[in-house]
Amino acid sequence: MKSREVQLVSRPPGMPTRENFRVVEKDLGYPGPGEVLVRNLFLSVDPYMRGRMRDRKSYVAPFGLERTMTGGAVGQIVESQVPGLFPGEHVLSDFGWREGFCCAGDEVTPLGELQASPSAYLGVMGMPGMTAYTGLFGAASLKDGETVFVSGAAGAVGSIAGQIAKIKGCRVVGTAGSAEKVRYLVDDLGFDHAFDYHDGDLRRQIRDGAPEGVDVFFDNVGGELLQAGIGAMRESGRIALCGAISMYNDTEPAPGPTNLPRTIGLGINIRGFLVRHYRHMRDDFLRDVGGWLIDGQLTYRETVFEGIESTPDAFIGLFTGANIGKMVVRLDEGD
Amino acid sequence: MKSREVQLVSRPPGMPTRENFRVVEKDLGYPGPGEVLVRNLFLSVDPYMRGRMRDRKSYVAPFGLERTMTGGAVGQIVESQVPGLFPGEHVLSDFGWREGFCCAGDEVTPLGELQASPSAYLGVMGMPGMTAYTGLFGAASLKDGETVFVSGAAGAVGSIAGQIAKIKGCRVVGTAGSAEKVRYLVDDLGFDHAFDYHDGDLRRQIRDGAPEGVDVFFDNVGGELLQAGIGAMRESGRIALCGAISMYNDTEPAPGPTNLPRTIGLGINIRGFLVRHYRHMRDDFLRDVGGWLIDGQLTYRETVFEGIESTPDAFIGLFTGANIGKMVVRLDEGD
Repeated sequence: MKSREVQLVSRPPGMPTRENFRVVEKDLGYPGPGEVLVRNLFLSVDPYMRGRMRDRKSYVAPFGLERTMTGGAVGQIVESQVPGLFPGEHVLSDFGWREGFCCAGDEVTPLGELQASPSAYLGVMGMPGMTAYTGLFGAASLKDGETVFVSGAAGAVGSIAGQIAKIKGCRVVGTAGSAEKVRYLVDDLGFDHAFDYHDGDLRRQIRDGAPEGVDVFFDNVGGELLQAGIGAMRESGRIALCGAISMYNDTEPAPGPTNLPRTIGLGINIRGFLVRHYRHMRDDFLRDVGGWLIDGQLTYRETVFEGIESTPDAFIGLFTGANIGKMVVRLDEGD
Repeated sequence: MKSREVQLVSRPPGMPTRENFRVVEKDLGYPGPGEVLVRNLFLSVDPYMRGRMRDRKSYVAPFGLERTMTGGAVGQIVESQVPGLFPGEHVLSDFGWREGFCCAGDEVTPLGELQASPSAYLGVMGMPGMTAYTGLFGAASLKDGETVFVSGAAGAVGSIAGQIAKIKGCRVVGTAGSAEKVRYLVDDLGFDHAFDYHDGDLRRQIRDGAPEGVDVFFDNVGGELLQAGIGAMRESGRIALCGAISMYNDTEPAPGPTNLPRTIGLGINIRGFLVRHYRHMRDDFLRDVGGWLIDGQLTYRETVFEGIESTPDAFIGLFTGANIGKMVVRLDEGD
């Protein structure tokens, strides 16, 4: 089997472009003893990948140049030389932007009987869903009935975070980047209030939706929205810093919030987190979110790009607001 | 008995000056039934008072104009019409910058047998000491043996926070605003490393003292020191935001830290707090800090201004670096 793969060939100084990537083709050969051959069905593109394109010391090594981009993918086993793994089984992997691969049996995670569409394991049932869940209950210690503000609320993480808060009886306010997304939040997801962050005074718009102030702020955006969110917090509020997508392509550091001293008098907690800081909550996440999906309390949308060659465009689209819900790339059925 | 008192007569736009205050004299009369007459021995001037000089909505009302400044003071009962309160007893009160006052018996806190000098109840045994204690163990969840960075380390709160961390077996790095203060931190308080924040690259200087990074950052200063401290944190670090004295006199909002996204990957927690958010820790504070004082593990210094008329200068001195340890005003013995 042949696999086309997307490699990073240069580090974007600001907004990534197609020229930062190239597509190469490899022959995968056949799985040796203890190996499986997997054909990917869906690839994940995620905002965190932008950080790894920089060549700097971080909690995780930068992506290598002229190497295939790694990241989440869901595929099916084509051939197996591993006892207990069978052709046709769905597996999750982290080998990234490629049509297929050979690897050791313990480098893939079998998904068992699917509880949702395969792509959902890259979204609501995967890393973004668990990020939403652990951000609310781990980083922000959400309590039933509180007032929650979500930035980037129509994205893969924010759309799940807002719905979970609704399930917990919270008042939920969200912001996103278009009128269509705002309608999605209110009409489809049941947010109590939503606004387009392009429409002027952020602080006032948050207060329109949360006149008594915000208990929990789930921030995916950073920048001006972080400043406005801090300004809207009430006493003993908690901010879960999940992402800062507005800042990922900055070539110079963007101004930070000038109102951090406000957190002192109000006893506000700000917690930066990644899903890996809350691995111990994985079983709770799967049980709760899986259950809410099955009984219809939680829904999800995806924005789907088609074919391996569209992967860079899908990735770039994360930063231009092209997605509602999780952005994924669906691969051709193959030859 | 007559009492001279210091009133706020105008709101300082930036750095306070003597012209923002005036001294008036009042006749206290005699205590009625259920009242005591108190002569103050020491008045407290504290950085938080600057915030209350602004006319804006906050967690606590602004100081009134042409009203006597309120705040902590230690005095002695002169006359009592309250059963159980006797002349000569030391009491803590919150009536502020005045030589004496009449009040209801339940508006003063009797100090019982003194465990330390009367002025210590405005410092190490009072609000600043409890701020240090609750910031470390409440806001920052300090664990024995961690690496701690304290800004404003020679001040009333920072000097106690650093010493408590040393008692807990921590490596302690501090910063202050003069060579004399730096010597005080290292020679008298046993800090492992200290530097003058005027001496250039803050980030490098923190790393010189904490090459493996900082677990707990106790920030009294804000501004550039907050930015540098965030940059020096290691994984799972905690920042206790106690104050932002560098920013209190700003007429325009100072730039905020540009590196908050760093907290995401490292799982860093930032908690703003006031001592009143940790009232439940009061008994632990009194037991621990009182014990450490008695057995000599904890020491303290004070900067003492003399006489009620010096109170505005003492207060202004907080922002010009005039104090080592707690700044207090000692009142004349009276006529």
